[in-house]
Amino acid sequence: MGMLTGAETEKLHEEYVMQPWAMQGRPSLPVQKAEGIYFWDYDGKKYADMSSLLVCTNLGHSNPDILEAISRQMKSMCFMAPAYATEAKSTLAKLLVEAAGADVYRRVFFCNGGADSNENAIKMARMVTGRTKVFSAYLSYHGATLGAGNASGDWRRFASEIGGANGFVHFMNPHMYQDGYTRGVDDEACTAYFLKALEKQMHFEGTDHIAALIMESIVGANGVILPPKGYMEGVRALCDTYGILMICDEVMAGFCRTGKMFGWQNFDMKPDMITFAKGVTCGYLPLGGVIVNAKVADYFKDHVLQCGLTYSGHTLACAAGVAAVTYYTEHHICDHVKKMEAILRDFLNRMVEKHVCVGEARCIGLFSALEIVKDKEKRIPMVSYGVKNPIMPSIMSELKNRGFSTFGRENNINICPPLTITKEELKEYLPVLDDVLTWVDETYCK
Amino acid sequence: MGMLTGAETEKLHEEYVMQPWAMQGRPSLPVQKAEGIYFWDYDGKKYADMSSLLVCTNLGHSNPDILEAISRQMKSMCFMAPAYATEAKSTLAKLLVEAAGADVYRRVFFCNGGADSNENAIKMARMVTGRTKVFSAYLSYHGATLGAGNASGDWRRFASEIGGANGFVHFMNPHMYQDGYTRGVDDEACTAYFLKALEKQMHFEGTDHIAALIMESIVGANGVILPPKGYMEGVRALCDTYGILMICDEVMAGFCRTGKMFGWQNFDMKPDMITFAKGVTCGYLPLGGVIVNAKVADYFKDHVLQCGLTYSGHTLACAAGVAAVTYYTEHHICDHVKKMEAILRDFLNRMVEKHVCVGEARCIGLFSALEIVKDKEKRIPMVSYGVKNPIMPSIMSELKNRGFSTFGRENNINICPPLTITKEELKEYLPVLDDVLTWVDETYCK
Ligand SMILES: Cc1ncc(COP(=O)(O)O)c(C=O)c1O
Ligand SMILES: Cc1ncc(COP(=O)(O)O)c(C=O)c1O
Repeated sequence: MGMLTGAETEKLHEEYVMQPWAMQGRPSLPVQKAEGIYFWDYDGKKYADMSSLLVCTNLGHSNPDILEAISRQMKSMCFMAPAYATEAKSTLAKLLVEAAGADVYRRVFFCNGGADSNENAIKMARMVTGRTKVFSAYLSYHGATLGAGNASGDWRRFASEIGGANGFVHFMNPHMYQDGYTRGVDDEACTAYFLKALEKQMHFEGTDHIAALIMESIVGANGVILPPKGYMEGVRALCDTYGILMICDEVMAGFCRTGKMFGWQNFDMKPDMITFAKGVTCGYLPLGGVIVNAKVADYFKDHVLQCGLTYSGHTLACAAGVAAVTYYTEHHICDHVKKMEAILRDFLNRMVEKHVCVGEARCIGLFSALEIVKDKEKRIPMVSYGVKNPIMPSIMSELKNRGFSTFGRENNINICPPLTITKEELKEYLPVLDDVLTWVDETYCK
Repeated sequence: MGMLTGAETEKLHEEYVMQPWAMQGRPSLPVQKAEGIYFWDYDGKKYADMSSLLVCTNLGHSNPDILEAISRQMKSMCFMAPAYATEAKSTLAKLLVEAAGADVYRRVFFCNGGADSNENAIKMARMVTGRTKVFSAYLSYHGATLGAGNASGDWRRFASEIGGANGFVHFMNPHMYQDGYTRGVDDEACTAYFLKALEKQMHFEGTDHIAALIMESIVGANGVILPPKGYMEGVRALCDTYGILMICDEVMAGFCRTGKMFGWQNFDMKPDMITFAKGVTCGYLPLGGVIVNAKVADYFKDHVLQCGLTYSGHTLACAAGVAAVTYYTEHHICDHVKKMEAILRDFLNRMVEKHVCVGEARCIGLFSALEIVKDKEKRIPMVSYGVKNPIMPSIMSELKNRGFSTFGRENNINICPPLTITKEELKEYLPVLDDVLTWVDETYCK
């Protein structure tokens, strides 16, 4: 590397790369290097990565422990086929089972990313139960392959629906703010309403036809939507009642993002399967997987697991995973997240008070979003669901121009910095967001 | 790494890892290191990797150029999100378009492996054509996610069929030996028969309902099945006639495996989309993708490409890809493959003459398989399709015990060594196979 200028890198990208979720041939910022919470473009401009890219670089960029682990693994081998045992894969499987709780969880299936982690969990659920239907939430994203795509709730599902896949049933999950509830006041009512509707839908779909229910433990990309108190436990209870396997998608919420190793550990329930990716390697190498409980693991003791891929348990990726998972524990990242959360939450709450464009702030750990509204009293989102509108992209650009890089879907601004961010870094960059929100107030909320 | 003994590595694997395509809790060989065409277990026993693992380590293990490229890339960053341009991604996209032919091909979509390369090609075909059906061959494997799994032909499809996905239609592709034809004599008749049947099936499915036809350019895992002369060109012509996008799955056949950069370059036709994985990085890091022609690329200039994944164009993986693709060209790997092919082919032909258990040898480049039979005259395979039988695994074990590691499906033994294998290495290890075939003659062909 180091052969191309930024302009050349950008030009080749524009000409040759198929850009996800976009029209092709549009400009892209060329990036030269990344370290800590920062990355730099070719003009030397520094950006604070306030979204951990796509909420994956939980330990920031160029973490020396992970780099060192990759280098060390490369000395013996980069990859050994799934049929063989390797130290990296064996060690990571054990670490993950223990992180989830070895009393309940037993084994790990490894794959490459988030989409295929969900694909494999769904396949396993169908094999174990002999049932076909899969319940998933409208407010969700689970990936873009045919199974994960059909399970997803947001519009990124639609292309996966061409031709279609059978048995994918969507239910409406709660979004207290948008549904007109008040958090801390209406939780019980909201939970009761949504659980009742879910149970009713399960009956209409036939409870004994439902293999699995898949949910993000905290809905991430769609705006860090915190469930009302009791909701997750209620969903778990319904799954128990009807013999449905519950899959928690921890691709975004996992690995200390919420201040717990897994997002579901914020609730009083345990899923049957946990799907993961992103934070397991902080994105340094592609890796994903499924942690399964005894029920699922035991079924496959005497049934062939009909899941597989060339790179299952990829050696180099598992080595990065061992380093990352060890780092979370040894450096008490969850504790640090809890401390930083206090600062972030306090700031976000002040933004709600201060800005007419901010309807609500939601925050758990360093997983947070602001709900941008055009009418705060009536809770009307700045942009309508699914309608193309340049306002939110313009806000993101405004932030990025000021060196604050993040993303958001619909009318949300996600703020999910690397979990290693310091108090000083937070205090340096949060005011940038404050300034831009003032600009939003003035520009779009007249 | 280096903390566990082989026995400990194996024990943890047995206890914690979900093993693909297997029942769980069974023993697995622990592997300690890999270099060149070899890998070593913890007892120091050396194995010649005569299948390039799963036909992916085309340049052998621990290739210094690829290792160096990974190390270099790690110095600036491991991963930047898909929205950003990076030198590694830009460079690799250009190299791949040029390798396929810049006169016809335009852009590359990157993903993590073989299954999702096919998922994305299928999604694109459906978006571009507005049609839903996807034709694929029974003798095929395209991956195990819901879309790739339903497109696959062999039994690894079945778990993806639980619940099912609409629009996947399977056609029978030719297997001259098993279908009773003689190569070099009956090609024309065989091609005519299978093309006629395919066209008829297309009419019954409704030609204007068919978005794509996906095929391995050379059917790999199912036994390196060489199409009869004219067949691939005929399929292409049918796709042209009916406006069907043709996808060639080059996951296994690509990157000099057949002595050409891509397998389809052995025929007088060009697919609309080329899916790839494995050899692009030789498996050192997970990477896959789709190379698309102008028709597909142009459609997405003003339509949103509704495909995406966190790790699309993964920086470190693309850096490995740049090194591997450059290596193939600069070291004239295709020329070397052609030379080694002569030795391998000669040997395999002698095996057909010498052993009653060898029905046919098929070989193109260093992509080869022996068809093991129990009745050579009647061409009866050693094991019936899809029936569990310990004979073939026992042959693989016999080979492995003698330091010759490979795999095969059904009644095939695949011989697909790293493309960098030397004449001396071939001449050292092929006699091992000869010996084992003698053992097979004596043990199973009485
Ligand atoms: C909760 C969740 N699940 C699954 C995925 C899909 O993961 P991938 O992009 O690695 O396929 C994502 C991606 O953002 C996600 O946020
Ligand atoms: C031709 C072909 N396509 C697709 C795949 C699936 O690739 P992966 O295992 O990376 O998902 C394979 C795997 O062997 C293959 O041989």
